[in-house]
Amino acid sequence: MKAEIISTGTELLLGQITDTNSPYLASELPLLGIDLYWITHVGDNQKRIVEVLQRAWGRSDIIIVTGGLGPTEGDITRESIADMLGEKMKVDPELVENLRSLFRKLGIEMPQRNIKQANLIPSACAIPNTQGTAPGWWVEREGKIIIALPGPPRELQRMWEKEVKPKLSRKLSGEVIISRIIKTAGIPEAKVDEMVSPLCSSTNPTLALYAKFDGIHLRLTAKAAQKAKAEEMIAAAELRLKSILGDAIWGYDNDILESLVGDMLREKKLTLATMESCTGGLLASTITDVPGSSDYFKGGLVAYTAEMKIAFDVDAALLARKGTIDPEVAAAMAKTARLRMKADIGIGITGIAGPDAVEGKPVGTVHIAIDAGKRKSSFSATYPPRRADVKRRAVVSALFKLRQLLLKM
Amino acid sequence: MKAEIISTGTELLLGQITDTNSPYLASELPLLGIDLYWITHVGDNQKRIVEVLQRAWGRSDIIIVTGGLGPTEGDITRESIADMLGEKMKVDPELVENLRSLFRKLGIEMPQRNIKQANLIPSACAIPNTQGTAPGWWVEREGKIIIALPGPPRELQRMWEKEVKPKLSRKLSGEVIISRIIKTAGIPEAKVDEMVSPLCSSTNPTLALYAKFDGIHLRLTAKAAQKAKAEEMIAAAELRLKSILGDAIWGYDNDILESLVGDMLREKKLTLATMESCTGGLLASTITDVPGSSDYFKGGLVAYTAEMKIAFDVDAALLARKGTIDPEVAAAMAKTARLRMKADIGIGITGIAGPDAVEGKPVGTVHIAIDAGKRKSSFSATYPPRRADVKRRAVVSALFKLRQLLLKM
Repeated sequence: MKAEIISTGTELLLGQITDTNSPYLASELPLLGIDLYWITHVGDNQKRIVEVLQRAWGRSDIIIVTGGLGPTEGDITRESIADMLGEKMKVDPELVENLRSLFRKLGIEMPQRNIKQANLIPSACAIPNTQGTAPGWWVEREGKIIIALPGPPRELQRMWEKEVKPKLSRKLSGEVIISRIIKTAGIPEAKVDEMVSPLCSSTNPTLALYAKFDGIHLRLTAKAAQKAKAEEMIAAAELRLKSILGDAIWGYDNDILESLVGDMLREKKLTLATMESCTGGLLASTITDVPGSSDYFKGGLVAYTAEMKIAFDVDAALLARKGTIDPEVAAAMAKTARLRMKADIGIGITGIAGPDAVEGKPVGTVHIAIDAGKRKSSFSATYPPRRADVKRRAVVSALFKLRQLLLKM
Repeated sequence: MKAEIISTGTELLLGQITDTNSPYLASELPLLGIDLYWITHVGDNQKRIVEVLQRAWGRSDIIIVTGGLGPTEGDITRESIADMLGEKMKVDPELVENLRSLFRKLGIEMPQRNIKQANLIPSACAIPNTQGTAPGWWVEREGKIIIALPGPPRELQRMWEKEVKPKLSRKLSGEVIISRIIKTAGIPEAKVDEMVSPLCSSTNPTLALYAKFDGIHLRLTAKAAQKAKAEEMIAAAELRLKSILGDAIWGYDNDILESLVGDMLREKKLTLATMESCTGGLLASTITDVPGSSDYFKGGLVAYTAEMKIAFDVDAALLARKGTIDPEVAAAMAKTARLRMKADIGIGITGIAGPDAVEGKPVGTVHIAIDAGKRKSSFSATYPPRRADVKRRAVVSALFKLRQLLLKM
């Protein structure tokens, strides 16, 4: 099955917004055994949209069009599909009633222009939209399928997940492609590459590496006639990767480091507190991105100056002796966080996010310490000197080191 | 001038990475008076890349190809351009020498496979890459231009900025398109839309609205033969928007709220401290995303539980009486932050990021208070109940309210 995606919207061609729908859909299609060959962005111009649709109709089995389903004059996806197929649009009374009742619930009278969203052609049926006013279109003709989805990512993802994906998977048969992502941290990309090289030459499953902000991800992709067979192939390759990478693996697929660490803290009934300097609150904010983090996260201190570190009880003599960018200071901060906030574990981070060097130490220098009373752990690194990256990578390292400590507790 | 972008890379079609190069280039092209009509993503398959190149060659004046310039077998952009144009590639001795000296600097012998990056065709000249090994290609033939740029965004942006943009602008003349983005906060999209509707029907300059996480952005775009004329048109429209939107406008173009507020604090020689509950450190982290924020930001407290709020000196009786989700508690937190960290201004935020309601109040409830001693300000809102959005919107509101207070100081 050959698929292509057509993203409509002049905003895309002006660089005003980034298309996140295509990557989302692109990552979903392989699981249905569908190969994606092209993604085309085209502006809100009917002649050009029809041209692109025509080409897609000639070369692809499944065409997914995103955007252009709104009520305004600039929304011309429906018109373009009708035009390309030479079919005539007609307002569907049932869809009009759906729209009217939607507006009624919002306590607003339906604007006249929204009626346009109730149009259909003979080959199309509507796909319900629970998140907005724009129904999608499912078009079938000559063994080909066109799926038109609304542009807002929340509406698109919900419609895909609840309506389109089940319908497509019922429709299709044949080869299934399954992917598994294995997430590591603490080992540089080149080293991971070298370690897993025996698996890199395999063509089924294939292995690919991606450097992400939360470490190196490895993607296994297997293709088979049956889902069970593909899963078996993935499982065997995964077992080999586990034996090679061991503890450097922290998660799989949609796993998020802060959630996994949070689960471990909750399970072990341990509480956490932080004291941050160069990361400026990003560690606390990342920890509290996880719903339910109040179960284990007590609080955080952001001490952005030496004066504030002292005010929060870090030993002034230590700071005078060592400066603020020092492993011992990180350890003192971790201990202070633990004691002051009566937590089981404290994390301290000090370093230089940049752009200027501090105390003669280079931008990117970071010292992290974890203090769990008897058990302690520390880590120092020099990251590439870009402020946002230094903050982000320091937070990932702190969480990864916390995970390693928790594994031993 | 009609341009199109061809993004190569199978990762894009698997949804493994999001193409940020196309939005970047798309936002740059209008400033050169170039209209972008198409963006196509295509996998690392020479037949399909050649097909896409052929179509582009037939319909566009400028074709920008991104990715596929690396040293591996999968990097086939050079080969595909040569193939499409029917020209033969030849290794350029000077480029080989450049590569060798680059590797010499890194203390590594150049791998044999990198020689492929020194290939040229008769119509191409190399574009220097100061950030990596892959030179770009500048191809001119039959009045058309093909520009091949490396995939890594840092390399691409640098090459665009330093090499391609100046060369293109020297080359081109004719109409110039200029855009100006005006950023507002504090007024809902529908209301902004209504307020600026008199300007919406204009076709030159055009006005478009975008709802962003930091408020509603308005984009003015003007087209004229001369840059000065286009700028004049933008300036006139901007003046009208200013008289309509007043204080709701907080910035322009690349302005970032936290940087602007930081500049105001620095200029007024005022210091800031924060105490956060539901935003969990995101306010402090956002403030410290700005280089040099240590000039005015003293520190932050993240009190994620009532117990921690009391430990940080928020009145226990107040908490017992009002609960934690209350405007008075926000005010007490702001005051505590200011006094405890000896800052001129304190900000307090309490609320419910979700997913569960607290104290019978709905998810999305947020109370923000700013305490500058005599001057105080407070703000309450109920945001759509999505955890990440609640955190982000609360931070934007806090910074926007701080800006409003600073304007009066």
